[in-house]
Amino acid sequence: MKNEIIKKIEKIVGPDQCTTAPEELLCYSYDGTGREYLPAAVAFPKTVETISAIMRLASEEAFPVVVRGAGTGMTGGALPVAGGLVMALSRMNHILEIDTDNQIAVVEPGVVNGRLQAELTQKGLFYPPDPASLKFCTIGGNVAECAGGPSAVKYGVTRDYVLGLEVVLPDGRIINTGVRTAKGVVGYDLTRLFVGSEGTLGIITKIILRVLAKPTAKKTFLVLSRSLHQATALVCRILASHQPCTLEYMDRTALGIVKDLLPFSLPDSTEALLLIEVDGDELSVATQAQKLKKFLDGQENLLAVKDADSKEDVDRLWKARRSISPAAFQIKPNKISEDVVVPRSRIPDLVTYTEKLAQKHDLTIFTFGHAGDGNIHVNIMLDRANQAELTQGRAAKKSLFIEVIRLGGTLSGEHGIGLTKADYLSLELSPTTLETMQQIKNLFDPKNILNPGKIFPQKNENKLKE
Amino acid sequence: MKNEIIKKIEKIVGPDQCTTAPEELLCYSYDGTGREYLPAAVAFPKTVETISAIMRLASEEAFPVVVRGAGTGMTGGALPVAGGLVMALSRMNHILEIDTDNQIAVVEPGVVNGRLQAELTQKGLFYPPDPASLKFCTIGGNVAECAGGPSAVKYGVTRDYVLGLEVVLPDGRIINTGVRTAKGVVGYDLTRLFVGSEGTLGIITKIILRVLAKPTAKKTFLVLSRSLHQATALVCRILASHQPCTLEYMDRTALGIVKDLLPFSLPDSTEALLLIEVDGDELSVATQAQKLKKFLDGQENLLAVKDADSKEDVDRLWKARRSISPAAFQIKPNKISEDVVVPRSRIPDLVTYTEKLAQKHDLTIFTFGHAGDGNIHVNIMLDRANQAELTQGRAAKKSLFIEVIRLGGTLSGEHGIGLTKADYLSLELSPTTLETMQQIKNLFDPKNILNPGKIFPQKNENKLKE
Repeated sequence: MKNEIIKKIEKIVGPDQCTTAPEELLCYSYDGTGREYLPAAVAFPKTVETISAIMRLASEEAFPVVVRGAGTGMTGGALPVAGGLVMALSRMNHILEIDTDNQIAVVEPGVVNGRLQAELTQKGLFYPPDPASLKFCTIGGNVAECAGGPSAVKYGVTRDYVLGLEVVLPDGRIINTGVRTAKGVVGYDLTRLFVGSEGTLGIITKIILRVLAKPTAKKTFLVLSRSLHQATALVCRILASHQPCTLEYMDRTALGIVKDLLPFSLPDSTEALLLIEVDGDELSVATQAQKLKKFLDGQENLLAVKDADSKEDVDRLWKARRSISPAAFQIKPNKISEDVVVPRSRIPDLVTYTEKLAQKHDLTIFTFGHAGDGNIHVNIMLDRANQAELTQGRAAKKSLFIEVIRLGGTLSGEHGIGLTKADYLSLELSPTTLETMQQIKNLFDPKNILNPGKIFPQKNENKLKE
Repeated sequence: MKNEIIKKIEKIVGPDQCTTAPEELLCYSYDGTGREYLPAAVAFPKTVETISAIMRLASEEAFPVVVRGAGTGMTGGALPVAGGLVMALSRMNHILEIDTDNQIAVVEPGVVNGRLQAELTQKGLFYPPDPASLKFCTIGGNVAECAGGPSAVKYGVTRDYVLGLEVVLPDGRIINTGVRTAKGVVGYDLTRLFVGSEGTLGIITKIILRVLAKPTAKKTFLVLSRSLHQATALVCRILASHQPCTLEYMDRTALGIVKDLLPFSLPDSTEALLLIEVDGDELSVATQAQKLKKFLDGQENLLAVKDADSKEDVDRLWKARRSISPAAFQIKPNKISEDVVVPRSRIPDLVTYTEKLAQKHDLTIFTFGHAGDGNIHVNIMLDRANQAELTQGRAAKKSLFIEVIRLGGTLSGEHGIGLTKADYLSLELSPTTLETMQQIKNLFDPKNILNPGKIFPQKNENKLKE
């Protein structure tokens, strides 16, 4: 990027709203994947008008713009792979409105998920999507990736809560999509076209969210099993007649990683744990819990069915659950972290397959995740400095994707495609489907200035690899 | 359409799968709006390949194709306003798969909503979207319009249940969108771009639906009020701490139309009725019902709070509710029927406004509908043969739309834009938003052969009016 362009950006955003200092650029060069790509500059716009002006300039001068929330993404969505400008939305962090009567919240994209949750709780309201990074990640990033979380099994994902958006198009024009009502079908569903588009179609500057009345009670159960297959095979049967708000599982390795954080010790023969919760009001939770307990107690050969009674125990459990991903680096310095999804009934097949894959490639591969959705986090541990291991890891990843598709699944449930899965997209999408998506990208962003290098397989030599 | 083209279509679909007989064309010339436009031919394809071949021909020869389910639409979506071919999907009516373990159903577009419901019920499953026309309307039409229904207040609308689609594009290419898993974020959300696109972007040939475990119990309450304002003002307060699966209301006129169908007589002073239901398993319904009853009994000045105990009473109530729209023609031979939405807290303002509107234009205007969603069916009764009345009706409709937008609402909650609202779209959407939608239409259908004349305001002289 020419210095002259950076001067123009500085003029648009104002003093102290833009930086090119190398030590600061570094802070905006990486995300949850651990990869690094230096931008030429970082801007911190505070208003939609500023963003619009930057995009008019970007469109004229054809420089890349990558929008960044908190940089917690797992697939490289916020990485400035082609350099250019990182637009950090951390200063657009206002909760603009909480409308209790209509159960609606209006927020700027830089609002941290956990902060919104806390504000809503004070008003007896509830925004369900709860990615493991909720203390850090932003609602804008959540919308861009269509984030999920444990509560999705009962409450759905981000897409199900976004009613409308304000968006700056790549050429700087501003549009409003959707509604601020419970229903709306006027024209094409642009709202959900932007949700999950990973910052490639427009810059989301305002988000209208549907929120719910906050459940006042919750009850947590743990199921310990001697067999991963047994534990995951329970999932469909639980969902046939219960409505848990959490149905997570962890395999033996995942449990080993966080065992010191757990509020209890595990029998040596524990191969898998299910974490199950029901929520609602006091009375409803009592009846749901009774029914679920009876069902679980009726299962043969389970190692144990526990209920976590104290709030402290439940908090420790969740801390352990949310720590699996970061704590995994105990095992190896790097990981290939996937969030594949299969039909729930195929989870036992998938976990059996990953066990074989680990053996075949002589790698540690562990799994945990949102069993209720069939959304399994598969973690292939390796040391990138070890070329042989990296090669094995990449081969295992590709085999995993092929198996997931064979099982009727999809490559990503909530992390998106970003950079790390772009080369595998054609395993899932037909050439016609991919072409249709690429045409939509070209329609919105003919100069390919907004988050270039993401989602679509890159055709040039400089192919982006895991 | 040239005879030679019709011959080609007949050759593609096979004998008995295409008609040009005037008496048959007539049957495919109208829909729920009561308007009529004759097509040149009607084809009844049975496979995606046949549809693809027809679209390749349509694309070459540039003739209009309008897809039709059961023709129950309320905004003219299935009307062949530009002539051409009606593609009736009534013979693509197979339920292809019901996967109980994964709570998924795969259906062809011509499957009638009520038939799917019945099949699912036998397996303990449940597909929530329940438009009043559910005994006749098809899932394909429901998806095209993003249909809702009374259950949307708890369970959401069609969009929330469509996981994936098979679609024939206007040029005949076939694409698959979405997933058959609980989650999925791979690439742009083409699925929800097609949902609600009113047959203008592609022809939906297969639908993958998320279904739920069937609630085993339900309890129905009725609230009678002396004041429309009082009844509608209750809505937000009910939803603040209850989760009804139905929260409908009817005004005095709507009640008058169906009074003979009701399982009880109404006190003369009844100005409004709320129909409220809770569902779940036996125990859960008992606790919800107790809590709701207590709340309702605590409200001052209500005329009555009844519970409908027998299944017969409940069936009669629903029959009455679903009969309002067709039975309204007792009042006048025609109606302008709108399904506007406002934030729930603004329903009292909206109903007050419609009362004034009726007075001002000297028309009968009555309202009923999905109060829980703020989705109010406003019915302007008139005789189209009476030019003065028609003029007043159109003026009232436009004023209504302006007020709805002023109240933060939207022109349609579940009926779509189709033909009847196309001219009003710019009241809600900005020129940039409209232009973006039109560009998407042009991208998918550059020759404008698929359902031309719908959604977008028509620029030519021959403007389509109410």
